[in-house]
Amino acid sequence: MTPLHALDAWEAAQRLARGELTAEALTRACLERTAGREAEVLAFAALDADAALARARALDAAPKRGLLHGLPFGAKDIFDTVDFVTAYGTPVYAGHRPVADAAAVALCRAAGAVLVGKTVSTELANMTAGPTRHPLRPTHTPGGSSSGSAAAVADGMLMLALGTQTAGSIIRPAAYCGVVGYKPTVGRVPRAGVKSVSETLDVVGGFARSVRGAALLGAVLTGDARLLPRDEAIATPRIGFARPPEWAEAGPDVVRAWDDARRALAPRARCADAALPTAYARLVPLQKDVMAHEAARALAFEHGLHHQRLSTPLVALLDAGAAIPGAAHAAHLSEAAAIGAAVDALFDDHDALLMPSASGEAPAGLAQTGDPLFCRAVSLLGLPCVHLPFTTGATGLPVGLQLVGRRGEDHRLLAIADWAMRHLTP
Amino acid sequence: MTPLHALDAWEAAQRLARGELTAEALTRACLERTAGREAEVLAFAALDADAALARARALDAAPKRGLLHGLPFGAKDIFDTVDFVTAYGTPVYAGHRPVADAAAVALCRAAGAVLVGKTVSTELANMTAGPTRHPLRPTHTPGGSSSGSAAAVADGMLMLALGTQTAGSIIRPAAYCGVVGYKPTVGRVPRAGVKSVSETLDVVGGFARSVRGAALLGAVLTGDARLLPRDEAIATPRIGFARPPEWAEAGPDVVRAWDDARRALAPRARCADAALPTAYARLVPLQKDVMAHEAARALAFEHGLHHQRLSTPLVALLDAGAAIPGAAHAAHLSEAAAIGAAVDALFDDHDALLMPSASGEAPAGLAQTGDPLFCRAVSLLGLPCVHLPFTTGATGLPVGLQLVGRRGEDHRLLAIADWAMRHLTP
Repeated sequence: MTPLHALDAWEAAQRLARGELTAEALTRACLERTAGREAEVLAFAALDADAALARARALDAAPKRGLLHGLPFGAKDIFDTVDFVTAYGTPVYAGHRPVADAAAVALCRAAGAVLVGKTVSTELANMTAGPTRHPLRPTHTPGGSSSGSAAAVADGMLMLALGTQTAGSIIRPAAYCGVVGYKPTVGRVPRAGVKSVSETLDVVGGFARSVRGAALLGAVLTGDARLLPRDEAIATPRIGFARPPEWAEAGPDVVRAWDDARRALAPRARCADAALPTAYARLVPLQKDVMAHEAARALAFEHGLHHQRLSTPLVALLDAGAAIPGAAHAAHLSEAAAIGAAVDALFDDHDALLMPSASGEAPAGLAQTGDPLFCRAVSLLGLPCVHLPFTTGATGLPVGLQLVGRRGEDHRLLAIADWAMRHLTP
Repeated sequence: MTPLHALDAWEAAQRLARGELTAEALTRACLERTAGREAEVLAFAALDADAALARARALDAAPKRGLLHGLPFGAKDIFDTVDFVTAYGTPVYAGHRPVADAAAVALCRAAGAVLVGKTVSTELANMTAGPTRHPLRPTHTPGGSSSGSAAAVADGMLMLALGTQTAGSIIRPAAYCGVVGYKPTVGRVPRAGVKSVSETLDVVGGFARSVRGAALLGAVLTGDARLLPRDEAIATPRIGFARPPEWAEAGPDVVRAWDDARRALAPRARCADAALPTAYARLVPLQKDVMAHEAARALAFEHGLHHQRLSTPLVALLDAGAAIPGAAHAAHLSEAAAIGAAVDALFDDHDALLMPSASGEAPAGLAQTGDPLFCRAVSLLGLPCVHLPFTTGATGLPVGLQLVGRRGEDHRLLAIADWAMRHLTP
């Protein structure tokens, strides 16, 4: 029998709703798992076991509040919380106690979820690593910037966790840690109370151990009940296999996953190669410039007044971003929008696009968090995407692919992702 | 000779740059004006004259920092500031001291501007009025939600002020108070550190006493130097006179301003009627629903935990917004995007669209802030716009019109607005 802490969030929600499980038992199981594992994984920036248990008991004694009633969750430490220190991954804000919960945290709590703690973010959700280790191999990175959220969900310390993506900060750590990561369509989840690093790119999303768990969380974050898992069969999906211009950077584990997916899905779906527009190759360099420029502006206060307490790579990024003229930035956004219109048209022929999430298994070393290369284009386009963790690489660490959906049709993407996972992991 | 406090920001910036004026003298002039007027206007939520003078003196002793060197400015009290209490217009956050400046505040300070104080916002930038009175007629509203910013700039207490617009919170108070209000293209100014009330609608912009002053501030906020005022002549602009579906709500003062504008501009521009798409009439009801739904989500923490300290109308708005299903909200955004594409196409034939900003002069009474009716559609479309204050109404209060530009082409909009104001106010 699956231990409680290892339950998938959707399954746990069903058992809680049927009264077969209490919030207290579930929360206690996750806390016990955390007590045994956190010293090795270092996924948490802050944790309050007693408060979580008290909250779980209160929920057990109350009528059902919402879709997440009794589920323990964590929030990346760039989400403001009134009851936990929120330091945004930097010593600049050590000890900071916000006056309000981030909207996404408030929505989860209003739906009955139990906030167990704050998870490690890289420095200001950028590239400089925090302490978190890969739960399966502690000498390897869990990815970033949502490092602690991905690692804690992968390890059974949390059922669900909130993260954000600007370049590849949900999909990449999900791929490395072997969990489902879901990045919604840009603009569909409120960012209120989340430390902003890029005005047009930042998106709030989350992690779970199944597509159904991620869809449950997604329904609460977007407020769109169509995201909820359904039992009826979906029409035969049209899956576009879309090799991005960066395909040569995909390692053998990802190529094998790609071929495996084609073999598994071809008998059941209408699989076809999807030809990305030639200009798609511009998206990675454009995303880098858009992100650097917008980070320099969103972090203007820290860049100006606290640069001595920021990491050298972050200061270099902000300096480079500040040097990009505003007129060039405007041209970058216009160019990206035009390419986006061409990519949007691909969804007339494909219900979803399958693409790499990362170049391979989680890389060795804790001083970096891996390369968001395969996530940058989709981030710039603002399209919804889901990482599907369905296999392992040569050394036994998780490998998978991301499924990318049509703008604003997150419910269809998640339904197809759920269908695909059933056939990818028989 | 114009008293220093009444100088336009662009003129003041030129004099400061030429060494004809010191930051200290300019700041002192504004503070003296404030000392004489604030008890009647009540534009400020917080003010620190000594700190402003000290900062001005420091700037006078230092090399030029940037485009706003030595200019006194204010920020609506929903912008975080480290050195002023930031209460977001609600007793819920009375006494709150943020740990960082909002990005827009940091960008202005980095450009050398002197933050004099925080200006009154309506409750959480929604509809419940703050104490501010119309500077020309204290029994009338200055408009909202950026009430204090518009009133302080109109009255000569500030050169420049930051505001935000979600429905009509920049253009409407600018119209009532008779100042230039500039709302940039959505997504072009970082909202980091600004209390969010709507994920897709909120835009940071500002107020000045001339289009050139607003363009100077806009260049700093967007980082785009093309917005800066230029002396070369522009090509004969094509001005589309676009009567919105709500035209019947425009009062006689606005109809007269419309006719006056046509007479003044027709000899010098290619003026034509611009036919808005039939579906444009959907934008006002759509904007109301999008705003209510997103406000309920962005303010989920306050709605859930502090509803007893929110005003009855705000709670009613949030309740109504929370009752709109997420699937309906997604459909609203899609419908708005489709209408937006049709409106974008109008700019192939018109360089800018002239439209009403409000139905007339500032209405009597301080319990409300007027109706954002004529601003809602442009807010939902995310287009850049500038209020042009060029005449007065039947009772002597200011009246004007807004000029709406093509998405992302704020620099062209501001150049045309500058040209138009020269011919509207001979």
